[in-house]
Amino acid sequence: MNIVIVGLGNIGSYFYNYLKKNKNNIFNKTNTNPNILFVSAKSFGKKRNFPLSKKMWLKNHLSATKNKNVDIIVELIGGAEGPAKRLVFEALKNKKHVITANKALVAKYGDQLSMIAEKNKVNFEFEGAVCGGIPIIRTIKEGLIANNINKIYGILNGTSNYILSSMDRDKLEYKDSLSKAQKLGYAESNPEADINGDDVASKLKILTALAFNSFINNKSILVEGIKDIDQVDINNSNKLGYKIKLVGVAELIKNKITQRVHPAFIKEKSYIAKIDGVLNAVIVESNPVGKTVLQGEGAGPGPTTSSLVSDLCSVLRGNVKFPFVLSAKKRKFAAFESINNKNFSTYLRVDVKDHHGVLSDVTNVLAKNKVSVKRLIQNPTISKKNASIVIITHEAKSSSYTKVLFMLKKKKYVINTPKMIRIENI
Amino acid sequence: MNIVIVGLGNIGSYFYNYLKKNKNNIFNKTNTNPNILFVSAKSFGKKRNFPLSKKMWLKNHLSATKNKNVDIIVELIGGAEGPAKRLVFEALKNKKHVITANKALVAKYGDQLSMIAEKNKVNFEFEGAVCGGIPIIRTIKEGLIANNINKIYGILNGTSNYILSSMDRDKLEYKDSLSKAQKLGYAESNPEADINGDDVASKLKILTALAFNSFINNKSILVEGIKDIDQVDINNSNKLGYKIKLVGVAELIKNKITQRVHPAFIKEKSYIAKIDGVLNAVIVESNPVGKTVLQGEGAGPGPTTSSLVSDLCSVLRGNVKFPFVLSAKKRKFAAFESINNKNFSTYLRVDVKDHHGVLSDVTNVLAKNKVSVKRLIQNPTISKKNASIVIITHEAKSSSYTKVLFMLKKKKYVINTPKMIRIENI
Repeated sequence: MNIVIVGLGNIGSYFYNYLKKNKNNIFNKTNTNPNILFVSAKSFGKKRNFPLSKKMWLKNHLSATKNKNVDIIVELIGGAEGPAKRLVFEALKNKKHVITANKALVAKYGDQLSMIAEKNKVNFEFEGAVCGGIPIIRTIKEGLIANNINKIYGILNGTSNYILSSMDRDKLEYKDSLSKAQKLGYAESNPEADINGDDVASKLKILTALAFNSFINNKSILVEGIKDIDQVDINNSNKLGYKIKLVGVAELIKNKITQRVHPAFIKEKSYIAKIDGVLNAVIVESNPVGKTVLQGEGAGPGPTTSSLVSDLCSVLRGNVKFPFVLSAKKRKFAAFESINNKNFSTYLRVDVKDHHGVLSDVTNVLAKNKVSVKRLIQNPTISKKNASIVIITHEAKSSSYTKVLFMLKKKKYVINTPKMIRIENI
Repeated sequence: MNIVIVGLGNIGSYFYNYLKKNKNNIFNKTNTNPNILFVSAKSFGKKRNFPLSKKMWLKNHLSATKNKNVDIIVELIGGAEGPAKRLVFEALKNKKHVITANKALVAKYGDQLSMIAEKNKVNFEFEGAVCGGIPIIRTIKEGLIANNINKIYGILNGTSNYILSSMDRDKLEYKDSLSKAQKLGYAESNPEADINGDDVASKLKILTALAFNSFINNKSILVEGIKDIDQVDINNSNKLGYKIKLVGVAELIKNKITQRVHPAFIKEKSYIAKIDGVLNAVIVESNPVGKTVLQGEGAGPGPTTSSLVSDLCSVLRGNVKFPFVLSAKKRKFAAFESINNKNFSTYLRVDVKDHHGVLSDVTNVLAKNKVSVKRLIQNPTISKKNASIVIITHEAKSSSYTKVLFMLKKKKYVINTPKMIRIENI
């Protein structure tokens, strides 16, 4: 089978070199030869630490989609729009198998793309798009195929998890932890998608569709990032027996699906709380198997290549499957529900001027909005002029918290935007 | 595709009922109808909590292997020999696909069986044989196909893990913990294979062959069970910052494979130490993906059915693969090494009469055999006539410990068989 690799960044280069070295291995396992016919990237002349022959270079990568000798196109350009989108659409339309690690593209256009693949009986594979080297997509589609999944959640982004772990372990402020992550190569120079929750959201949308046999839902999803987490919140979480983690959660309650991405207080003894650094972990709760946990390296050229090769072998074995488990005809227009109707306990932090009557007014705001206090600690700040009120609440509606935060923000004694972090019992 | 289920115990019954209920689901995911043609078990008349029609009953289960209408035989009889062995051999010889959860059979005859399956181009699937609902076999064969595995290990038996966890949590002696496990249905009335390590050994042999592309090795494997673990050892492990776990470990060192099953001191902060109760966990260390962890329910009808159905769907999709990843021609006659050449730290417990000179004699025995002491604690027993000497050693050869134990056992002051438990840094 003839392969074209488009995109030769960190991942593309690693994958290219892996294939060159492991051709025989793959042949032995699949009975089919993976032959790299062409590669394409922005610039042929770019310095690379491996040789590239001019014969293999494809000037116009889109021509691969029309070339009769090409069987498989591996898209490693990235981005939901532009050249990646055009390449993948054209490839599938021209009956080429497609392998991609592009989560933004799959989250946005996965439904359309999988319909084209289905119609043209080619593979559309994207194991590398979700959690790097953790074979979670294959596990949902094959290993756990017997199960009705009711919840899928986890730590789906290594960069943000590294930042939070490092804030916790090294007592760093958010900005310093981010700088450290960038220096160590765990965060990109533009880390926006990793820290604002978008990266997790893309992965979660794909997992949701796979887990619940639904179409991808880009609208009903709460997405909050980690930018607003302060060292004082990390410190408070530890005092209260929690860790703060950026989680992605999709669950089915009374036939309605909720999707959410946000930082959460997680009990420090729970499995999820102990996933530190750049690791990813996914937990699937399903019937009849119960709870299944997969943990591993969530990013990087090696882990992503592991997933790309598993996709490749699936194609080489001639194992065409519906990209989202079921035929598009059988996938559901499932009902999604906004998180606003869900009840949560939360951690609230309200920094106030230390005047008399303030505490009573704060608790009054809570009571008015039917939020009841489980635990409250008032700490003076170092200057002693101000105080930080930390509250753990009993369960209340999401919308109640919105009102509480709105009302508190307007109070003159509140000195900066009050913080609310959901407590997740996972 | 027509299916015959042979064996209707807990697992067979659950699987049968699952298939009846989920026929459409499976059709939607595989485009093929799974039709149960016949079932067979010891007695038709046995009370079952579901209806069985006489039409579906097969008196002689071996006749299924000769029936032209039968495509798939699911063997759920159990046992490495006797009817299970005969059924599976006959089925594969007659070109029927076989699905089994029989770890003893696969560990003993898996190589022969997979050769017959390969020759006859039928599937031989055994996901349910290793770690119940954890899709570890599919993960090695597909999800991690790109990787060179150098170590695979974990907690592979829920019964023994439950017993050890309960000894730890509830401060029970071994016998009481076993009785409790039996009452709760976590241990069978004859728990021999679970507690003597044989069950883990079967699973580990299968995993070793898959992980290292070798044939199954039934000879070079150390197998020790948990019978000799006392409450005092559990107590000592906690004092020293460890947990005692029954582990299975296979690793590749300098092109030689070692396989071992034994109780081990595991640092209490490690992931493996925290796997409690009936859970199973498998860790795969490989290149380029790094460390991958799978955790889940290791036994029971629901989890095992999850694996059986994943095997079934693989067959229904027409996805014939070599049962052990590679063709028999390509599998290796790998070199296996006895654990005797491996260095270990250990926990030693020597119960002695509290005479003068005893401690010095014990340490002298260690020194003579080149075992050096890292930590030593002497505790008086309640009666104060005797003492318990607890030693954590530096790394030394396995054979050195054998000599130490042999020499100590003969000493008059030693009041019962000295204990040695390996310390594993996993």
